[in-house]
Amino acid sequence: MQLLASYLSGSWSPGSGAKATLVNPATEAPLADVHTSGHDLASAFAYARTSGIAELGALSFAQRGALLASLAKAIHGAREELLSLAVANGGNTRSDAKFDIDGGAMTLSYYAELGAKLGGSTLLADGEPIQVGRTARMGGQHVWARRRGVAVHINAFNFPGWGLCEKLACALLAGMPVISKPATATALVAHRMMELFAPLLPAGVLQLLVGPAGTLLDHLGTGDVVAFTGGSATARMLRGHARVIEHGVRLNLEADSLNAAVLGPDVDLGSETGGLFLADVVRDLTQKTGQKCTAIRRVLVPLGKEEAVAEAMRERLGGIAIGDPSRDDVRMGPLATGAQATDIKAGIARLAAATETVFGGTGEVTPLGVPAGKGFFVGPVVRATKDPMNCAPLNEHEVFGPCTTLGSYDGTAVFAAAFIAKGGGCLVSSAYSDERDWVSAFVGAAAPWAGRLYLGSAKMAAQSPGPGTALPSLLHGGPGRAGGGEELGGERGLHLYMQRTALEGDASVLKALLGG
Amino acid sequence: MQLLASYLSGSWSPGSGAKATLVNPATEAPLADVHTSGHDLASAFAYARTSGIAELGALSFAQRGALLASLAKAIHGAREELLSLAVANGGNTRSDAKFDIDGGAMTLSYYAELGAKLGGSTLLADGEPIQVGRTARMGGQHVWARRRGVAVHINAFNFPGWGLCEKLACALLAGMPVISKPATATALVAHRMMELFAPLLPAGVLQLLVGPAGTLLDHLGTGDVVAFTGGSATARMLRGHARVIEHGVRLNLEADSLNAAVLGPDVDLGSETGGLFLADVVRDLTQKTGQKCTAIRRVLVPLGKEEAVAEAMRERLGGIAIGDPSRDDVRMGPLATGAQATDIKAGIARLAAATETVFGGTGEVTPLGVPAGKGFFVGPVVRATKDPMNCAPLNEHEVFGPCTTLGSYDGTAVFAAAFIAKGGGCLVSSAYSDERDWVSAFVGAAAPWAGRLYLGSAKMAAQSPGPGTALPSLLHGGPGRAGGGEELGGERGLHLYMQRTALEGDASVLKALLGG
Repeated sequence: MQLLASYLSGSWSPGSGAKATLVNPATEAPLADVHTSGHDLASAFAYARTSGIAELGALSFAQRGALLASLAKAIHGAREELLSLAVANGGNTRSDAKFDIDGGAMTLSYYAELGAKLGGSTLLADGEPIQVGRTARMGGQHVWARRRGVAVHINAFNFPGWGLCEKLACALLAGMPVISKPATATALVAHRMMELFAPLLPAGVLQLLVGPAGTLLDHLGTGDVVAFTGGSATARMLRGHARVIEHGVRLNLEADSLNAAVLGPDVDLGSETGGLFLADVVRDLTQKTGQKCTAIRRVLVPLGKEEAVAEAMRERLGGIAIGDPSRDDVRMGPLATGAQATDIKAGIARLAAATETVFGGTGEVTPLGVPAGKGFFVGPVVRATKDPMNCAPLNEHEVFGPCTTLGSYDGTAVFAAAFIAKGGGCLVSSAYSDERDWVSAFVGAAAPWAGRLYLGSAKMAAQSPGPGTALPSLLHGGPGRAGGGEELGGERGLHLYMQRTALEGDASVLKALLGG
Repeated sequence: MQLLASYLSGSWSPGSGAKATLVNPATEAPLADVHTSGHDLASAFAYARTSGIAELGALSFAQRGALLASLAKAIHGAREELLSLAVANGGNTRSDAKFDIDGGAMTLSYYAELGAKLGGSTLLADGEPIQVGRTARMGGQHVWARRRGVAVHINAFNFPGWGLCEKLACALLAGMPVISKPATATALVAHRMMELFAPLLPAGVLQLLVGPAGTLLDHLGTGDVVAFTGGSATARMLRGHARVIEHGVRLNLEADSLNAAVLGPDVDLGSETGGLFLADVVRDLTQKTGQKCTAIRRVLVPLGKEEAVAEAMRERLGGIAIGDPSRDDVRMGPLATGAQATDIKAGIARLAAATETVFGGTGEVTPLGVPAGKGFFVGPVVRATKDPMNCAPLNEHEVFGPCTTLGSYDGTAVFAAAFIAKGGGCLVSSAYSDERDWVSAFVGAAAPWAGRLYLGSAKMAAQSPGPGTALPSLLHGGPGRAGGGEELGGERGLHLYMQRTALEGDASVLKALLGG
């Protein structure tokens, strides 16, 4: 069986000691082994701090962008192989796999283009020149300069391809070397990407640790950055880590998120806007088997429309085939790991104790094309609550799988926004309405509780990517429970890896510094 | 004797229990007492969360700006009284007191004007509209919305007036209610400002806790912000506080800073640029008795110029009278507290063990107009090291008083920037040169290690405020040892108190939301 090595200090390192086995979550067939320790992480950090920082320092934004373009091209060249790995190791349908792999390549390409646009410099201007003295001669100019440290990326199991690429794109373009750690259980895609990327990148720019983090965090120091996507317990551990506290290591955390979708009071379910709403809710329930940090966990509809929405969801969900995602007729695969299946069943049981069933009971399902008793399957589950605002299991615990809960409200933007807020901070929430005043009131009240607000309407329905898609041009992250992080958002995504500095002096000198 | 009360939940609360005494640091004469506990902080937070958030939500940026203008006006109206309090309680000369009080009023006025400019809205646009879909119809727009929480401000003893005002200006304009805590020992100025401000502000917008923090942090929750200025030990405590870790409370920390000034290899001491360099170094040593977080602690001059710089400093420092700052002939007062004097003497002793004396020995001084044995006085101290890069006491410990250390270097920008970096992150550092290539190389390498780089040159010398002055238009904060914070910087200063959210939808709806 394949033994996955880590790519550290410029070579492949198998590690040593105990092994963990990566499996196909649909069949539980073993796919690869990985050692759980035995890597020289001190040397890996030293390699990034010397080679990685020096190599990137010699490159302009445009040159770094060209590197990203070469990585995107490498993904395109191995696309079928990567999709197959995602299907086998991730429990992805082919469509799910494209979302991860093509999404990763698309994000690399986006930042490659941004690099070309930023051009031959290594400093980014932040805002316009400022007059500081009595006359225009004494000026100020804010700039962003790359941090001289290491970016440690800790990714979640659900997007091994996109997670690696989106974090890497921003850090590399900003000019920081990366040590990336995929989740062990679904690491095959990231491992194969590292094999593709290694020959294309200068020494020390990207290293990959496959297997547990071990002592990874114990090497952090001043100037370093940790970008993490995963659960809130790990997020808390990171905030409280001794090195983080001692050295003020910059953290970007993406954690739990109780994303909501709200149907506006003006929307008929049969309208274009109503159709968009239903399609988005159903897609988020089933795509990646509900394992998206942006998926809709809470659905709010106007009082009186609950049954019609429930009926429409039953109809759409009833036709979805669940089973081995390598089959062409299967639309939803298993959860990524046995531990996830156990967690999600527990979460559904907690919800079930406080809600009524709409579809799928508590997720029991007989998957297609899977040996009896095998695979980490949970079917789509829709629950309903009479009191969405005070349903604690709904508003306090994320169920990271194919489960969502319906509630109704009085149709006011105030209630809708308060319901978003009740989740304690989320990555994204959505509202579907064609009434501008309602939308305006909703945005004003809900914005501080979400990293992104998706405003569904008739005019954009035909070209909407849905709230569940994180785009490179828009921020991905959210306040409070969601971790307080910010990734992507175009140039904004670079800032995590840079220091903002105010330059103060002769205005003509400042202008010349930025190539003016 | 005056008993200082706190202004909490809309009224003055004296507290209860043990008392601390505020003194005149020049004479040790008692000035006021303050209870060290006995405040109902849970109610104060609840008051901010209800009244404060609602009152500010009803106001546009322009209206909040008008409030700030009224506070600045109140300071102007009581200026002489506030200056006298700063002289008596802070050990400030009249010039030092103006730096604090006028600086505070100026910062309020600056943000009042910014509020007027931001106008009648409550959302800030972040960047331009973005095309998200295939056509311009599907768009994105980033916005900043005020956080729905409480801003807790913890200020340092050295700037009781400016510290209160600069943090308040940003939070209030952004739309967050504030609970502010001045350092106890020098709280008279902030207390008097609160008396002036209270009748001018809506209920719950500003509260002041005088005395120890007590359980202040135990009331923090999701959406709250803590902005702190002080020492690194407290900064670490804040990062590791259970509520901060649990709720991901947003922190802005300004901690220790080993700011450096570098004389470029091209500069003659007799030139305008050389004169600026000497004036800035001497000003930072003596203004506020060296108790500025932005003061120059480390001075680097080209090899061969050490003795000329030392001689010029001896000459300038020799004429400075030290003593009771209420005397017209005194140019430098005492340190603010006995504890500070003890710390600084210990810091100077640590430096003295590794350096040679240039001026002032270890700070022994006989102050003018002070009863024998009274007052917290340390005289100006200049030390010198042969190996500035490897002088650990110099590069690892801030001496927060009238002390600086000279070293020499090879004149290269690379060495100069590496020396800045050796401080592990600072609020500001400065370089004095009229050679653009040297300055450009210096900025590229030094920028990630400083929140501000002050570039002294002949052209700006006549109107330079010096590196030690934090201006409202330029960022104040710094990476690493300096805490990783960002305050001020114009509109940037508001962002700490706001959530950035990506709006996604029909481009015409997004445009209308921002008043377009």
